Amino acid sequence: MNDPHIRKITSDKDTKDCKVYTAAMTHIPKTIEIVDVSARDGLQNESRRFSTAEKLELIGHIIDAGAKRIEVASFVHPKYVPQMAGAEAVVSGLPDSDDVTYIGLVLNARGVERALQTKVDEIGCVAAASDGFALKNQGLTSAQSISACQQMIAQSLAAGRSANVTLSTAFGCPFDGEVDQARVIALCTDLASAGPREIAIADTIGVATPWHVSTMLDALKSALPSLPIRAHFHNTRNTGMANVFAAINSGASVIDASLGGLGGCPFAPKATGNVPLEDVIYMLERAGIDTGVKLPRLIDGAHWLTGLMGKPLPGAVSRAGGFPT
Amino acid sequence: MNDPHIRKITSDKDTKDCKVYTAAMTHIPKTIEIVDVSARDGLQNESRRFSTAEKLELIGHIIDAGAKRIEVASFVHPKYVPQMAGAEAVVSGLPDSDDVTYIGLVLNARGVERALQTKVDEIGCVAAASDGFALKNQGLTSAQSISACQQMIAQSLAAGRSANVTLSTAFGCPFDGEVDQARVIALCTDLASAGPREIAIADTIGVATPWHVSTMLDALKSALPSLPIRAHFHNTRNTGMANVFAAINSGASVIDASLGGLGGCPFAPKATGNVPLEDVIYMLERAGIDTGVKLPRLIDGAHWLTGLMGKPLPGAVSRAGGFPT
Repeated sequence: MNDPHIRKITSDKDTKDCKVYTAAMTHIPKTIEIVDVSARDGLQNESRRFSTAEKLELIGHIIDAGAKRIEVASFVHPKYVPQMAGAEAVVSGLPDSDDVTYIGLVLNARGVERALQTKVDEIGCVAAASDGFALKNQGLTSAQSISACQQMIAQSLAAGRSANVTLSTAFGCPFDGEVDQARVIALCTDLASAGPREIAIADTIGVATPWHVSTMLDALKSALPSLPIRAHFHNTRNTGMANVFAAINSGASVIDASLGGLGGCPFAPKATGNVPLEDVIYMLERAGIDTGVKLPRLIDGAHWLTGLMGKPLPGAVSRAGGFPT
Repeated sequence: MNDPHIRKITSDKDTKDCKVYTAAMTHIPKTIEIVDVSARDGLQNESRRFSTAEKLELIGHIIDAGAKRIEVASFVHPKYVPQMAGAEAVVSGLPDSDDVTYIGLVLNARGVERALQTKVDEIGCVAAASDGFALKNQGLTSAQSISACQQMIAQSLAAGRSANVTLSTAFGCPFDGEVDQARVIALCTDLASAGPREIAIADTIGVATPWHVSTMLDALKSALPSLPIRAHFHNTRNTGMANVFAAINSGASVIDASLGGLGGCPFAPKATGNVPLEDVIYMLERAGIDTGVKLPRLIDGAHWLTGLMGKPLPGAVSRAGGFPT
């Protein structure tokens, strides 16, 4: 690395008069925040129904491993997502903790009302970048889902809770196909005006490539330089981990993941699991990036979860182990 | 992307007086060359023995899909790697083709002699970056494996064949653990002096992270700016695709992959499959990078291979399909 043509970028501030050798510029942040979504997005995509006690045990493993932000439930009608039934019971069973942020997901004002009756610390709102998915998921157009989110965020903030927002299908829609990047940036700007703590950009169906992620995140950080960006990837086409890397390299500071890659079966035609939490932690830890999450505890948790599910999970590090020592 | 602080790097030439916004700089090359290693590294790590006819059918699928460089056999003693028995029969059964390069892998001078008796176009030599692995794999120290490679390359070139070289365990060794990056660069420089067409940097046990790959490739391209670099990754810890992206972003121009991720089982404790060829092609194609390899034909091939193996393979795109249209 003594070539004077190479200049490593190690901070976020602009760099003047640099010479660039090819395109290789790697951003290694000191820390990355993890949001565990096992008990929400993970379970939501599994046919097995977890009891409240099992959900709490799952979340307990995540807390034990050191995660500080956890999506614990979705306040959606159980008619639509039966796996999320009993959200209130799950939240009331959670251990009180000053340093763990519990997030409750909501899709509409009724969901916010329910969530505000519980002790969740943060409300997670969802909008969609494409009409096809917004209509299917929320019965709204994409534009209506943005307005609804702005209201849900305001409703949450007025009640003294923190709020974040996730923009679904930002990289492609199962119904509409391509999603225009300029549209995504404009929607995020609209969402940001409501004052969420962060915006998550979601590859809901696992079609993104790391080049797409880089381009999108560059544009997003340019449009909203001071808002934290969370990245939410599914590993459906084996690009999830590459997308995590690309997102971090382009300034995302928060990563969603689920234990074992719960929510997807590597052998199912519609594998839709999140990126496996333990694999993300291995990748970041080996690069010297601190997440506060401890890999050995996660591997223990993944083994417990594999036993409970009675099937192998997509995560690799729980089988392969860490770096040989 | 209208922020004047962002400057995209789109070519390999140095760029002066640029302003850099955060660290996001993505290099999207027009083309990437693929080396299919299904019939060598793939089969070598599977317990099922393929007949010569089956090996030829496998290679036939790869040729049909449009791959132009294929590792077809290893000229290693079948006592050590029984899956590679009958290398000569495989090569003599290959269709004559002016535009496909057949590569025969060799571990020693005897292997080169055998390979030179066949019609392989190119000799692939192997050295190791760590003593532990070099001793186990070739009965040599790492330094001895470099000298041996220099001689094998010279032997191949003298016979009028092209030669490449792969440096194993460049990112970590199952026996020695950490491998020093400066050592890897020095070994590559020694190997380059023998005149190979390219050097492959191999994560033999699937421990690399994309940040490690970026750093390594940056240093390697700096030390050997004009030599093509090939990247060889195993997806053992789910970082393989991220490593492919990082390698390309840092100037690697050739990627190794195997159909279906052959050579590894996602549920085996020692999953050591290569990155799945069809997943790599999906990722590159969606980013507009041309490989000459056609995804639908690869997916057909992966389905054929899955049937033959009688077990699911790690590749995801053959199950999930391409981008929804």
